[in-house]
Amino acid sequence: MKVDLVTALADISPDALRLKIRSGDFTENTSGFAPGFVQCNIVILPSRWAADFLRFCQANPRPCPLIACSASPGDTGLPKLGDIDIRSDIPSYRVFRNGALEKECDNINDLWTEDLMTFALGCSFSFEEALLEAGLDVRNVSEKVNVPMYRSNIPCESAGPFSGDMVVSMRPFLPAHAIRAIQVCSRFPAVHGAPVHFGDPATIGIENLAIPDYGDPVSIREGEVPLFWACGVTPQVALENAAPPLAITHSPGCMLVTNLRNAELAVL
Amino acid sequence: MKVDLVTALADISPDALRLKIRSGDFTENTSGFAPGFVQCNIVILPSRWAADFLRFCQANPRPCPLIACSASPGDTGLPKLGDIDIRSDIPSYRVFRNGALEKECDNINDLWTEDLMTFALGCSFSFEEALLEAGLDVRNVSEKVNVPMYRSNIPCESAGPFSGDMVVSMRPFLPAHAIRAIQVCSRFPAVHGAPVHFGDPATIGIENLAIPDYGDPVSIREGEVPLFWACGVTPQVALENAAPPLAITHSPGCMLVTNLRNAELAVL
Repeated sequence: MKVDLVTALADISPDALRLKIRSGDFTENTSGFAPGFVQCNIVILPSRWAADFLRFCQANPRPCPLIACSASPGDTGLPKLGDIDIRSDIPSYRVFRNGALEKECDNINDLWTEDLMTFALGCSFSFEEALLEAGLDVRNVSEKVNVPMYRSNIPCESAGPFSGDMVVSMRPFLPAHAIRAIQVCSRFPAVHGAPVHFGDPATIGIENLAIPDYGDPVSIREGEVPLFWACGVTPQVALENAAPPLAITHSPGCMLVTNLRNAELAVL
Repeated sequence: MKVDLVTALADISPDALRLKIRSGDFTENTSGFAPGFVQCNIVILPSRWAADFLRFCQANPRPCPLIACSASPGDTGLPKLGDIDIRSDIPSYRVFRNGALEKECDNINDLWTEDLMTFALGCSFSFEEALLEAGLDVRNVSEKVNVPMYRSNIPCESAGPFSGDMVVSMRPFLPAHAIRAIQVCSRFPAVHGAPVHFGDPATIGIENLAIPDYGDPVSIREGEVPLFWACGVTPQVALENAAPPLAITHSPGCMLVTNLRNAELAVL
């Protein structure tokens, strides 16, 4: 999740960007491209795992906010999100066999079967854009690094084979800005919503903020407090635990760019 | 502000309660009475101080959320808030001369002149009720004491002679509950709204939480964080600084009980 929202000049439409991705011309991080539009975490599973995964999302809406899923096994489109071919519209895919990463690739045309189901989950890029629009400094954006993410000890509610602790992302703010950030993000439950914790990292099982489990550390300045949001990496941990024979996800930061506007997700 | 919202059995209507107050039968703290209805901080000033005080409220809406004021000097009613006689409908008044407290009394019939203007400001009782309805523990309520209040070093914006630092009230919460409290109170900007600070009290000039400047200390439990709200005592400090020849307020906790519902103040 290399983030470049502030300096993004790539004011390309979602459709134009997806065509570049589909043709193999764009295989990079999507952060900062097509600003204003929702980008999604993607999980693709064999149909027999679908019901349990849907239940897992339903039971854990903060880390796993489901925005769309296939109507039927084998569907390659997600019409609610735009004119999408899920086999080729993501810049980089990760393929997992029995819970273990097998490879990364630019398309999954050769892996696709009539049995696969696609799930699109909200992503923090949407609320980061709202925070920036509110005039707040999003540290991973201003420091141009991946957001730091940590495995917390907050348990997800299990659903069949899917289980695990919540992964959280962290952004530091001064208290008055933290209050504003909580207000801004509360408008966007479909993209993780308000933080789940702030302050002492040890309370949620995080030992050292300088050593994230995923992403990069960011600086925390005098007087700032770390805020922790439920993170879209959580379902990947649940996938590792469930270990289905095949699972396909986006590569971190290489999201599905949709035609849905961030503003459409605001509940207030 | 002795608070007894949780155990309040006094399910009396605002009109019935005001009649008791008007007749001199009720001279107590109004906290917990007529639940569901807005109670107001009251400031009464000579008309030549009105414009500056209105500007002070307008510039400092978080500590001084103006809900209603007299249409003209000498008006004893506030029709927007119910059938009110402001000279006798508050259980206890405080009379200030040149910024100094002169006395407390049950009515101001003998002090009233055709030159006085009344200002009704939102009070934290409304958002405390919303916090309790959200299932949160409001410590000053559960410990049955006055909320602790502190003079902060957050300056108010001055308006003519009115100036001073913001007084804040403090309620402790676990971080996850603090996030919920911020969401709940954000719905009520007319009664102080979201907190202005949380965490380290020294950041806003508070030395010792155990020694409030007004009200009573409350216990802060393991893992809890203090949240600080702009407080309706702020205008009293501004009144002391402005030192008008005459100023009349309610006595702390003895509020104007109105016919306006708390739910009517919710913006969301």
